[in-house]
Amino acid sequence: MSKARAHTNIALIKYWGKADQALILPATSSISMTLAAFYTDTAVTFDAALTADTFTLDGKLQAPQAAARVTQFLDLVRQRAGIATFARVQSDNHVPTAAGLASSASAFAALALAASNAAGLELTPTELSRLARRGSGSASRSIFGNMVIWHRGTDDGSSFAEPLPINLKLDLRMIAVVVDDMPKSIGSRVGMQRTVATSPYFPAWVTANEAAASAMQQALTDGDMATVGALTERSAMMMHASTMAANPPFTYLQPVSLALFDYAAELRANGFQVYATADAGPNVKLLTTARDADRVLQQVQGKFNVKAVMSGPGPAARIID
Amino acid sequence: MSKARAHTNIALIKYWGKADQALILPATSSISMTLAAFYTDTAVTFDAALTADTFTLDGKLQAPQAAARVTQFLDLVRQRAGIATFARVQSDNHVPTAAGLASSASAFAALALAASNAAGLELTPTELSRLARRGSGSASRSIFGNMVIWHRGTDDGSSFAEPLPINLKLDLRMIAVVVDDMPKSIGSRVGMQRTVATSPYFPAWVTANEAAASAMQQALTDGDMATVGALTERSAMMMHASTMAANPPFTYLQPVSLALFDYAAELRANGFQVYATADAGPNVKLLTTARDADRVLQQVQGKFNVKAVMSGPGPAARIID
Repeated sequence: MSKARAHTNIALIKYWGKADQALILPATSSISMTLAAFYTDTAVTFDAALTADTFTLDGKLQAPQAAARVTQFLDLVRQRAGIATFARVQSDNHVPTAAGLASSASAFAALALAASNAAGLELTPTELSRLARRGSGSASRSIFGNMVIWHRGTDDGSSFAEPLPINLKLDLRMIAVVVDDMPKSIGSRVGMQRTVATSPYFPAWVTANEAAASAMQQALTDGDMATVGALTERSAMMMHASTMAANPPFTYLQPVSLALFDYAAELRANGFQVYATADAGPNVKLLTTARDADRVLQQVQGKFNVKAVMSGPGPAARIID
Repeated sequence: MSKARAHTNIALIKYWGKADQALILPATSSISMTLAAFYTDTAVTFDAALTADTFTLDGKLQAPQAAARVTQFLDLVRQRAGIATFARVQSDNHVPTAAGLASSASAFAALALAASNAAGLELTPTELSRLARRGSGSASRSIFGNMVIWHRGTDDGSSFAEPLPINLKLDLRMIAVVVDDMPKSIGSRVGMQRTVATSPYFPAWVTANEAAASAMQQALTDGDMATVGALTERSAMMMHASTMAANPPFTYLQPVSLALFDYAAELRANGFQVYATADAGPNVKLLTTARDADRVLQQVQGKFNVKAVMSGPGPAARIID
């Protein structure tokens, strides 16, 4: 038995669109912050007595259909380890109820580490990141702590995440603002596919976001918060703009999402260092600093009827117990 | 003295971005509907006794600064007519208070017709459209009634509007929904320039919107309302997406604008033929049919705390009195 913990992450420079569906090679590189407050604990036991994989999530045994993605992922591990045994997988999400952050990133990063360890594989962090990527693209980033870049790469070997050096004067915080905890009407996989296939803006998105990833690395090295923030907002805006030009057009942003972007600009005008981002859903995440985080959280909760949770940077995925 | 009336228009296929600032050559062709309910009446008198142009708007004499754009336009007319006389310009906007449609389109179309007529020029509608274009791009379309295409062209001679044939079974209505009657924080000229100069999506916008203009002509000929509506929403979404990718990003859409786009989709799901569009501001215009217009108007007013005004197709610019 092996048990691992991995933290969720939020991309400042977004991952949107795959270059290869099967290998989950992204069209663009992405840069994220791993969050201390939200994580998944997953225990994996390969057991010769089992006649199928079992997957228990938050104490609840999942139906085979819901477990299919876990089984597919375990197949990759079994193939690599040269074993044919089924596994018992027990997973617990430590995400505040309705935080809207129950992401597949921490789930597949924890599963990759626990399963590979339980199968006797001794993977380097880079190998682990590549493996986690096959479960869910953004899971490749949750193998590492703090600030992480996922290189898009050109094949399975070159598409992996690694930690990014960041200037010590940047003391970043992320506030997750929960606008809506309903399942999305268009999941991120389908949304990406429609954007890649039909948005005339997709090729320019790839080029511009790749340039933003380079600029972000420099800004993180320089400790230039204004540029880190501006690039964060711009990557999010470009991502959401790419879906609005899809055919038919769609957007994950809800009216209140837009209001939160506007409010971040208003807070900036009042001297706060705060920048908004959003993923494939209406929830907004606010990137801010240790200096301003408490007051930003207070202001947002005072202004909007929303739940909001703050987090600092989180550690890398690791074996626990 | 010559007095002219021109109606405002709303683009279904948007004009966004100039290929030539001085000549006002647009980067893309556009297709609009001229609206019966909203128009400008403008009287022009060239008077040798005047020592400067005077411009009275809605009964109020304007300061020289506010009149500068009118004088610049009159210079084009004087140059063409070979006269040097100053003019008295009296303009009245017949736009319901706060309808958010006080556009420069009807203003410069009426001015072009009244001034050229008062100066003794006998311009064809095509020449008039080219002239109006120099005052404000969208004014080129307000020279004509009903459905109009403005060909982007490659020079002054080839960039003009003309009426489009449309299938008689299409009985279109437009509902202007007033979200906000405050002046925009980023005017359309500045917004276009920033988009052209900094949005990586601009070249794809031009190509995709040009294709949408072709498809729209076919759909109007076929009388295919679902396609007319889908192309209308898509052109608007692509236009607003192009500004979201500008640097720095910006959007004219406010939270309630987005809510109105969502509501149009909801009404469609309930069997109404209604499609949303928006220009360089937060107000939303709903394209619908004679069959559904009254009920859509009622539903929108019941759901949102907004003013809304309905209009049918309007006539071409003409000399009145």
